[in-house]
Amino acid sequence: MTSTPLSPLPLTVAQYREAYASGSLTPAEAVREVYRRIAAHADPALFITLRPEAEVAAEAQDLPAGPLHGIPVAVKDNIAVAGLPTTCACPGYAAVAEADAAVVARLRQAGALVIGKTNLDQFATGLVGVRSPYGVPRNTLDPRLVPGGSSSGSAVAVAAGLVPLALGTDTAGSGRVPAGLNAIVGLKPSLGAISTRGVVPACRTLDCVSVFALTAEDAFDGLTALAGFDAADPYSRALPLGRPGALPRRIGVPDAASRRFFGDTLSEAAFDAALADLAALGATLIPVDLAPFFATAALLYDGPWVAERWEAIRPFITAQPEALHPVTRAITERATGFSAADAFAGRYRLAELRRATEPVWRDIDALCVPTFPRPQTLAALEADPIGPNAELGTYTNFVNLLDLCALAVPSRPRADGGPAGVTLIAPAGRDAALIPLGGALHRAGGVPMGATGATLPPALEPGPARAAGDAVELAVVGAHLSGLGLNGELTALGAQLLRAVATRPDYRLYALPGEGPRRPGLVRVAEGGAAIATEVWALSPEAFGRFVAAIPAPLGIGTLRLADGTTPKGFLCEPEGVRAAEDVSRFGGWRAYLAAGG
Amino acid sequence: MTSTPLSPLPLTVAQYREAYASGSLTPAEAVREVYRRIAAHADPALFITLRPEAEVAAEAQDLPAGPLHGIPVAVKDNIAVAGLPTTCACPGYAAVAEADAAVVARLRQAGALVIGKTNLDQFATGLVGVRSPYGVPRNTLDPRLVPGGSSSGSAVAVAAGLVPLALGTDTAGSGRVPAGLNAIVGLKPSLGAISTRGVVPACRTLDCVSVFALTAEDAFDGLTALAGFDAADPYSRALPLGRPGALPRRIGVPDAASRRFFGDTLSEAAFDAALADLAALGATLIPVDLAPFFATAALLYDGPWVAERWEAIRPFITAQPEALHPVTRAITERATGFSAADAFAGRYRLAELRRATEPVWRDIDALCVPTFPRPQTLAALEADPIGPNAELGTYTNFVNLLDLCALAVPSRPRADGGPAGVTLIAPAGRDAALIPLGGALHRAGGVPMGATGATLPPALEPGPARAAGDAVELAVVGAHLSGLGLNGELTALGAQLLRAVATRPDYRLYALPGEGPRRPGLVRVAEGGAAIATEVWALSPEAFGRFVAAIPAPLGIGTLRLADGTTPKGFLCEPEGVRAAEDVSRFGGWRAYLAAGG
Repeated sequence: MTSTPLSPLPLTVAQYREAYASGSLTPAEAVREVYRRIAAHADPALFITLRPEAEVAAEAQDLPAGPLHGIPVAVKDNIAVAGLPTTCACPGYAAVAEADAAVVARLRQAGALVIGKTNLDQFATGLVGVRSPYGVPRNTLDPRLVPGGSSSGSAVAVAAGLVPLALGTDTAGSGRVPAGLNAIVGLKPSLGAISTRGVVPACRTLDCVSVFALTAEDAFDGLTALAGFDAADPYSRALPLGRPGALPRRIGVPDAASRRFFGDTLSEAAFDAALADLAALGATLIPVDLAPFFATAALLYDGPWVAERWEAIRPFITAQPEALHPVTRAITERATGFSAADAFAGRYRLAELRRATEPVWRDIDALCVPTFPRPQTLAALEADPIGPNAELGTYTNFVNLLDLCALAVPSRPRADGGPAGVTLIAPAGRDAALIPLGGALHRAGGVPMGATGATLPPALEPGPARAAGDAVELAVVGAHLSGLGLNGELTALGAQLLRAVATRPDYRLYALPGEGPRRPGLVRVAEGGAAIATEVWALSPEAFGRFVAAIPAPLGIGTLRLADGTTPKGFLCEPEGVRAAEDVSRFGGWRAYLAAGG
Repeated sequence: MTSTPLSPLPLTVAQYREAYASGSLTPAEAVREVYRRIAAHADPALFITLRPEAEVAAEAQDLPAGPLHGIPVAVKDNIAVAGLPTTCACPGYAAVAEADAAVVARLRQAGALVIGKTNLDQFATGLVGVRSPYGVPRNTLDPRLVPGGSSSGSAVAVAAGLVPLALGTDTAGSGRVPAGLNAIVGLKPSLGAISTRGVVPACRTLDCVSVFALTAEDAFDGLTALAGFDAADPYSRALPLGRPGALPRRIGVPDAASRRFFGDTLSEAAFDAALADLAALGATLIPVDLAPFFATAALLYDGPWVAERWEAIRPFITAQPEALHPVTRAITERATGFSAADAFAGRYRLAELRRATEPVWRDIDALCVPTFPRPQTLAALEADPIGPNAELGTYTNFVNLLDLCALAVPSRPRADGGPAGVTLIAPAGRDAALIPLGGALHRAGGVPMGATGATLPPALEPGPARAAGDAVELAVVGAHLSGLGLNGELTALGAQLLRAVATRPDYRLYALPGEGPRRPGLVRVAEGGAAIATEVWALSPEAFGRFVAAIPAPLGIGTLRLADGTTPKGFLCEPEGVRAAEDVSRFGGWRAYLAAGG
């Protein structure tokens, strides 16, 4: 739908950075371009409040040198920006914010430029984007479709190439469904990763700020800049986000009984195409029974959690119920039918369902589901404002209740050109692990970025497979190598093999005497060293701690120097331990020594 | 109040074990003695269901060889024992249990003998022990006083020396208040440590099974035998309990504004005497503002959590409200005044208060409060069934809401001989850390065990202070020593100093060259070694993992051999790293080397 010639000016965060770094663009010029694109896109329902260009241009003259320096950002209008009204798409509720929300303060510290406040389903209640008195933002791919919500304006602003980054919120799917319907990336971080202080709650126990971007890498850059513990937000958590590592390999997919496309064979075929892309990327697809996930989803709108939406605006909805959108009001007022006992009964049921879903995560690294069963049209919503909305949440509603993180990425379009997308899901704290797979899948599908017509820039060269996040890399040289006697100690701790790589030629390897599984000892030497084969494994800090605590003398853990330039932790041996031991360095590694009959 | 000559037959779990081990007692003889004591104690309100002696005696002939082999145990009558009615002190609710509660199954596996089901405040609602149609168990110290509740019968059974161990439950203080009022030990474990499957809920999100015993060590033995993850209980948690270690030193106490004794100067003086004992044990008393703790406590009975009590018996209280004790009914029916929105609002408030209390735990290892502000009489409860009950919960109500564990121990009696006690409190998972301090304080007060007249057996010789549970011991030799440059790295990770002890004389210490804080390198040698001073710290596996991951070459972690016979993990240096370094072993340690101008 965009008619704007966007190239060669930047689209993605990475491109903005390159342009700034090369001097081919200044933030002030970027502001001019952004407002030109906004005018050209001509969607009066996209922004609820657009800041005056001159004001933003003035701000662009003096920006902090943070990680989002000069990046234009749109902010969903349930997140406070000082000096602008926070409407939540409800004019009667609107009030000018006195202070920035914590996440907006982070945006500013990071050097970003807040352009304006975007439209949403009123009070973030909805997945469609049509429940707003400020109009319906135009779906960027097909004007007959709903834009998706509740973060409709933010998703559309990114999909149209107006800004490379936008903030949404996500309680039931509001950061994922509109991303999927506009062929962009929606990152719904782990609960508490980004402070929600200054965000008007939908369901305070489930809300999070989400990030829309054109690429998975951009979305993660945004998250990295915005995340951080906020002691003033009771729901904030200190979650080390880490950095993307190797592709996760064990991917859960809905089993036959869990596939829900409501008879839409085009969407089902598109999902199968995405799974084929996944498999081609080397993933093992593991069917998962989603019954407890769907049962969890049912709690959200049919259960007592709707009372959180009512509680969030209790004085307002009590005083002026008629000021609400009629659909929003009808949904929210369901809250009054639930007692405190019902609320606790819902918690109990959720605790049972969480427990029921926990075993799933032992067998898979991530879950891959359709972002939505099928696209919905404006006409369908006019005919039934509730049913199609609920259907859109099929694969999203359970995520926050189960304390998961999620990344929605576009996948190959349907045969009729309609949008399709998948969402990768993992337990809280594993946000970074989803990024490389999401990026790879996005590229594998060859889908242009949103409605910009531009193709994805290639991923950065991954380099050696590295541990994600705060996981610790451990180089093993002996009985812990794959297939050898003590390897089970690593796998029992959830360790993942990252790479096989030799040491720099600075070591001697000895066959230690003693009982039990035969073990070598590695010692670094000043001269006369050899390159010794290692495997580098990734362990969580806790698993690493338990592993190290159990290592017997004379072995210990130091820092190794490997041929690929990395310096992981690794096995070393006390010099006293090798005094009576055979030097087996000539074999180049323990496995070769054993194979030679050693 | 007991008139039974109990000695020399065993009272405590430890004494039972000794008697069994020495052959001076058999489980069958123990059963006879228990029933003799029960008859002599002659309290018809103590047990709701007492198993026939012959049945228990038969069971005693063939018990598993578990950690509670032959230990007679009383079980609160809201915990299912297969074949016995579970009454919850409400005859109309009673039903014979078809299966054991998970904790009772554990009791049996551990070899314990379940003697019977004990009286309680109906549906575990109350802290007084008088809200039961089965009568009021007699306070073992003073028949004018309430026994305390809701676990009244279990506490009295232990205090009277009838059984060495009894199970209670604790939601708001039911495992602590009756312990305090009968001068015994009440251990309220971390939520989820013991499965609550098969326990009739009071507030399911807050309930736990508690342990009554005559000594802190016995209580912890009971916990150790009964704790364990139960996947079938959604509120069960995998909490490594570990074992008691060194005395915690930094003890929070109510600041001046937080002392609540309701004008009872005798109880206040008794608390001050307990604090004096604490200080004499080497503790540093740190005043703490309990305002956010008291605000949390107020949520429990004045807020929506009462709806959990209603939800727990929804069909019953809806169908037969008149079957409830009138006070219990009145309290429980308050639930109907709270909406689902109120329930969520309560959660939000609790989240804020949890956050507000978190900083307290950075400065203290445990909190010491009175178990109750002052004892209450039966007469006071007759005059006002609500007020004195609420007062008893002053220092207990907040504990489960804030996810803390607690140990109630007797302290020196009031000047009039009335009971006094203190409760030690720590964050969830630190149960073991409370035991040594509780035991030491109990002994320091010289209080007899319950009403048995017997004095506490001495504590077992503690040996060197060791890390509790799965914590890892780490010996540091250089800049991480207390007061030196990198010590903050340890304390920031929550490490606790255990002991200062030298290595065996098998090491050389070198001053490493290089920038940053000066650091030594330790190398074990075959001959010519010296004893080098170390400090041994305890870290959680995760903290240890993070710590090791950050150690730069040429330093690493191996296993040290210390003069006290222990072999903790500790700093070692690659031999290549000390080639150009000065040997400073003659100083006997890094601190001495620095003090000598090194």
